[in-house]
Amino acid sequence: MKPVIVVHGGAITIVQEYAEGYRSGVKSAALRGYDVLRQGGDAVTAVEEAVVVLEDNPLFNAGHGSVLNEEGEVEMDAIIMDGKDLSSGAVSAVRCIANPIKLARLVMEKTDHVLLTCKGASLFAKSQGIPEIPGEKLITERSRERWEKNLKLASKPKGTGTVGAVAVDSQGNVACATSTGGTTNKMVGRVGDTPCIGSGGYADNNVGAVSTTGDGESILKVTLARLILHYMEQGMSVQEASDAGLNCMKTRVDGTGGVIVVNSAGEWTAKFSSNHMSWAAIKDDNLQCGIYLGENENIPVAETL
Amino acid sequence: MKPVIVVHGGAITIVQEYAEGYRSGVKSAALRGYDVLRQGGDAVTAVEEAVVVLEDNPLFNAGHGSVLNEEGEVEMDAIIMDGKDLSSGAVSAVRCIANPIKLARLVMEKTDHVLLTCKGASLFAKSQGIPEIPGEKLITERSRERWEKNLKLASKPKGTGTVGAVAVDSQGNVACATSTGGTTNKMVGRVGDTPCIGSGGYADNNVGAVSTTGDGESILKVTLARLILHYMEQGMSVQEASDAGLNCMKTRVDGTGGVIVVNSAGEWTAKFSSNHMSWAAIKDDNLQCGIYLGENENIPVAETL
Repeated sequence: MKPVIVVHGGAITIVQEYAEGYRSGVKSAALRGYDVLRQGGDAVTAVEEAVVVLEDNPLFNAGHGSVLNEEGEVEMDAIIMDGKDLSSGAVSAVRCIANPIKLARLVMEKTDHVLLTCKGASLFAKSQGIPEIPGEKLITERSRERWEKNLKLASKPKGTGTVGAVAVDSQGNVACATSTGGTTNKMVGRVGDTPCIGSGGYADNNVGAVSTTGDGESILKVTLARLILHYMEQGMSVQEASDAGLNCMKTRVDGTGGVIVVNSAGEWTAKFSSNHMSWAAIKDDNLQCGIYLGENENIPVAETL
Repeated sequence: MKPVIVVHGGAITIVQEYAEGYRSGVKSAALRGYDVLRQGGDAVTAVEEAVVVLEDNPLFNAGHGSVLNEEGEVEMDAIIMDGKDLSSGAVSAVRCIANPIKLARLVMEKTDHVLLTCKGASLFAKSQGIPEIPGEKLITERSRERWEKNLKLASKPKGTGTVGAVAVDSQGNVACATSTGGTTNKMVGRVGDTPCIGSGGYADNNVGAVSTTGDGESILKVTLARLILHYMEQGMSVQEASDAGLNCMKTRVDGTGGVIVVNSAGEWTAKFSSNHMSWAAIKDDNLQCGIYLGENENIPVAETL
């Protein structure tokens, strides 16, 4: 079947000044993932590579460019899941590595476990030869400024973005990957929805794959990714299920966010109840992309090269 | 309505020598939770107090008596959830405290977050005046012997138990609580299903509450607690939904475990696909309890006093 990739760069408010950077970031990530798929690569590798592009881009809240916790440090969460056999790997509150999504994949493939946290995740990274980098290398001027500004506020801002990808490969396998620095000025050791299976993402070849972003604590309370797949199992389309999931999160726990979804037939959607969400999708050699509600730029992949 | 409490002491193989201890442990926990409910206490307090009894009992793999990780240390996970508003609190890989379930409740009630891990969980415990205890105080001779024996084995044993409780209070509110030392000889920082919402437990007044135990990585892959509640939303009874959830886990990821479930009408069940599971339930001033398949001891609460 024809492969599909969808990526998101977080459900956040995006000011005009940064809009083009977000657009070009999600396009690059989608093109990287699509390239993997077009060469016959599997869905897991495609979502991993797409997320690495976003982790390496300092504009996005994941990897380099992650927001800072209350102590001014970067602690990151990530998850990857293979819809073929429901295998999954995740890391929470991990520090001083460039690409948490690569470590999540190693947890999935090299251990008997699904989730490693904090010091244990670092020990495992070291055992796998992943270089430790100084925490400051992940910090941008923008994330430090935001942190300093928030230190003075009484109430902390919610949801400062996440990145993610979902894909179907030519064999019909689905996968998801999500990575984040979490919420800015969060408590030390705060773990959000991202590394929690069924909340930050879920993938099942029988149904499809979801990656979520937004108010992490709200996403957890409704296990948003799994909820949307349950709606799809009950016969809803990817669009209907995404709307129903986001609506449930709004009505039950007053949370907003965004999702990208594919089903195993290759139908996909990108939906959000937040102000904005950067996203890009490629199917049939055609790239679509947007940030604002109703925005949908259409470009043949050949013209992007 | 009439309150109900159900507790479990883990889905594990229980040798004859320990059977009476497990039975008496789950009975005590259920009686403690029921006492809270009978005095008009809420479901959240009932499940917390029941789990504290099991954490304090060295026979069970939670709190005092937790199994040891590969380095011979205790790292514990716990979750609590209030079905009234889907609020939840959890801790993962926390060390050197007596009652992780109490800390999980404080995360729920005193922070904007749902899950705190490792060092961050310890910092928060300190800020709340929870005494730090030496890690060795949580270790029993039995858990150290098991750890030493497993060090010599090539493949690590799966699922070494969890404790949990679900309840409906007289107001019709449901809640769940789950607490564990995880799997014996686990990697440092391994987080299982217990603190992951939807896997180790879930509670929603619209449906019911679930606490799970067993092979943690398998429970995560099928988000067992949320899955069972989805089945109930689709019209299955608590028994049918529990069987269907455990069956899904067996067929999709070859995992075994056990669950305790109540719905918001006060119907309850305790089911397991593992060899044994210690459980106790109280409804209508009648206590039921068992360990082996088909075992169901029946005692009026008045006779236990």
